[in-house]
Amino acid sequence: MVVELISVGTEILLGNIVNTNAAYLSKQCADLGLSCFYQSVVGDNDGRLSEAVRTGLSRADIVIFTGGLGPTQDDLTKETVAEVMNKRLIMDEDSKDHLIAYFDKRGIELTVNNWKQAMVPEGSKVLINENGTAPGIIMEDNGKVAILLPGPPNELIPMFENQVKPYLLQKTDGVLHSVTVKLCGMGESKVETMIEDLINQQSNPTIATYAKTGEVHIRITAKEADANKAKQLIKPLLKEVKKRFGTHVYTTDEQVTLEQAVVDLLMDKGFTLTTAESCTGGMIAARLTDVPGVSEIYKTGFVTYANKSKKRELGVKKKTLKGHGAVSPQVAFEMAKGALEKTKAQVSLSVTGIAGPGGGSDEKPVGLVYIGCNVCGKIVTEKYNFNGNRAKVRESTVVAALTLLRKCVMEFKDTE
Amino acid sequence: MVVELISVGTEILLGNIVNTNAAYLSKQCADLGLSCFYQSVVGDNDGRLSEAVRTGLSRADIVIFTGGLGPTQDDLTKETVAEVMNKRLIMDEDSKDHLIAYFDKRGIELTVNNWKQAMVPEGSKVLINENGTAPGIIMEDNGKVAILLPGPPNELIPMFENQVKPYLLQKTDGVLHSVTVKLCGMGESKVETMIEDLINQQSNPTIATYAKTGEVHIRITAKEADANKAKQLIKPLLKEVKKRFGTHVYTTDEQVTLEQAVVDLLMDKGFTLTTAESCTGGMIAARLTDVPGVSEIYKTGFVTYANKSKKRELGVKKKTLKGHGAVSPQVAFEMAKGALEKTKAQVSLSVTGIAGPGGGSDEKPVGLVYIGCNVCGKIVTEKYNFNGNRAKVRESTVVAALTLLRKCVMEFKDTE
Repeated sequence: MVVELISVGTEILLGNIVNTNAAYLSKQCADLGLSCFYQSVVGDNDGRLSEAVRTGLSRADIVIFTGGLGPTQDDLTKETVAEVMNKRLIMDEDSKDHLIAYFDKRGIELTVNNWKQAMVPEGSKVLINENGTAPGIIMEDNGKVAILLPGPPNELIPMFENQVKPYLLQKTDGVLHSVTVKLCGMGESKVETMIEDLINQQSNPTIATYAKTGEVHIRITAKEADANKAKQLIKPLLKEVKKRFGTHVYTTDEQVTLEQAVVDLLMDKGFTLTTAESCTGGMIAARLTDVPGVSEIYKTGFVTYANKSKKRELGVKKKTLKGHGAVSPQVAFEMAKGALEKTKAQVSLSVTGIAGPGGGSDEKPVGLVYIGCNVCGKIVTEKYNFNGNRAKVRESTVVAALTLLRKCVMEFKDTE
Repeated sequence: MVVELISVGTEILLGNIVNTNAAYLSKQCADLGLSCFYQSVVGDNDGRLSEAVRTGLSRADIVIFTGGLGPTQDDLTKETVAEVMNKRLIMDEDSKDHLIAYFDKRGIELTVNNWKQAMVPEGSKVLINENGTAPGIIMEDNGKVAILLPGPPNELIPMFENQVKPYLLQKTDGVLHSVTVKLCGMGESKVETMIEDLINQQSNPTIATYAKTGEVHIRITAKEADANKAKQLIKPLLKEVKKRFGTHVYTTDEQVTLEQAVVDLLMDKGFTLTTAESCTGGMIAARLTDVPGVSEIYKTGFVTYANKSKKRELGVKKKTLKGHGAVSPQVAFEMAKGALEKTKAQVSLSVTGIAGPGGGSDEKPVGLVYIGCNVCGKIVTEKYNFNGNRAKVRESTVVAALTLLRKCVMEFKDTE
């Protein structure tokens, strides 16, 4: 069954708000096994809205509209959809009572234009709005369904969850189930080359790659009568993908981020971590502390932006800074060494590099970064050359640092 | 002139990502005086994409596509638009060189599928991608324009700013000119009440408020024949707004962020800054070091997540931690004191609070934060109660800390 989303509102076309409703509804529909081929946004304009309604109803079984249900004159969605579907608007007594009660409770006078919100297309199913005044509406005609929802997310989401979802569940036959395999330390084109055969063979389940900064996600999706059958269908392909990428796979849990995976790994090992950052200036620390409960393994971080701070806080030697420069493997090494010794942690991570836009040279260009990782005294340093502007270089560095940390901790063998 | 946006990507239709590109581009186009009547999203599907391209080109003068330019097989945008516009794809030598250099710099092997990215429609204008591998493309045909941009925002935004905007500026007749007045330390409803009369009177220029976390932006926009006339039209209203909000205005420059304004202020005063963070875990440091050239005023930051770190790095007293708890004005005070003394900076900023989801109590609930600011030995601490989840509390804290820092430095009088 095919669904289409039409968001109505000039404020979206002007870029004043981000259309998060579309993302929410898309995900919900995908989870219900509905296929969504198109989303569109149209302004509060009678002619263009009519055209969008006709187009949507011609190519989808279910069209979900958001916005344009309010009391003002430029709220046209209900009137326009009713006209295209040849339905008369009639007063809905329940909605009228709801309106009166809503305004009464807040001690606000009910202005005339509000009555418009209690008018509904005849024969339609009216959805109660728990958090606002405009009711939602479901209209059925000739096997086509139009669902009209209010624009504010705090009205739309509970209405969808409690009233639309149960309605749609009756309509759908199969469900979609997806698993995301998240990889670090490998680029997208390399990843795709390694599963080209699987991509070429795909039908059900399908398989696709998505590039993030420093990461690649592989999404495997199956369509089946129920979630359990879909999961079974995914299993063999999931196993194969995991086998091919080995330790590059940091999770298969949609909710788990790279920083969460790193924190979990350190907890498993019983290791605490200290960070010592120069060019990332606290971004690694900030990302790690996004994870609730991180205080168990993360106690201290240093942002040693100046050479003097590297010396004072981490004991980097003056001679090393003078001889090799702040952006060097030697300084990354001493930062990782000093951070561990000072804080008595088991693991430390150090970063020094040139984020730009200034500070680069032929010998040491913008994007040159050294990362050091110290696991119980065993120190590794790696050299990187990142592309892009200051923000991109910094973001790439954070992901590379977490990836290196993960690798070093996983490969660490306590031989004592 | 009419523009239409078509976002290409199954990940948007599945609700895996929010389409922030559409909001960004809509806003940019509105600022350029282009009218946008439709936005749409279509998946990585040849037939449906072709249909969307034809529809878009039939009803708009300019169609901007985002996404689907990457190296993989399901990246179809360029191929499909070229086919609809009857253009052959040819190898672009500059793009080829860019690709080789990009991979070479990173020491990654260039796989065969990457060459696809250097193929461009004949006669098109090629846009350099500073932060990725896929070039952008501008195609003109029969008075219609197709602009193809990469999907990742960090590639799209600089490409639009530096290459597409100058191109579009030549195409538009009347121009819109906007000035944004950025305020900190005041909520949106207060701000709106203070300019309610101006909002009610508005026609050209228009005036509107936008709420950001901890900030409010007021946007004044005029439409005129040229930019100079528009600027003149804005002047009196801008002056009035600046007068009403006084020192709450931290900039009227669209490009300047709060962290940039804070860094500029410290540079003006010749002050260096040290940060000492607990619940924000490096976010303040990370945000400050987003600003190029910050190294002149920012040398050292501490992330003292554990009590032990607060004692060791900042000299917070055991007695204070025991007597008042880590989340207390006394600890914020000692953190700010210790940070300054240890690093010999002129200004320090300290943060201690409960970001959640755990760790709260009746007495000290999630969202309770103390911020300390030390300017040359004069220490101020402030108490805050923030709403929302962990991410929201942390983000609100960062903005409040920068706002307090700005206030303390502005009000500081060197009486010695």
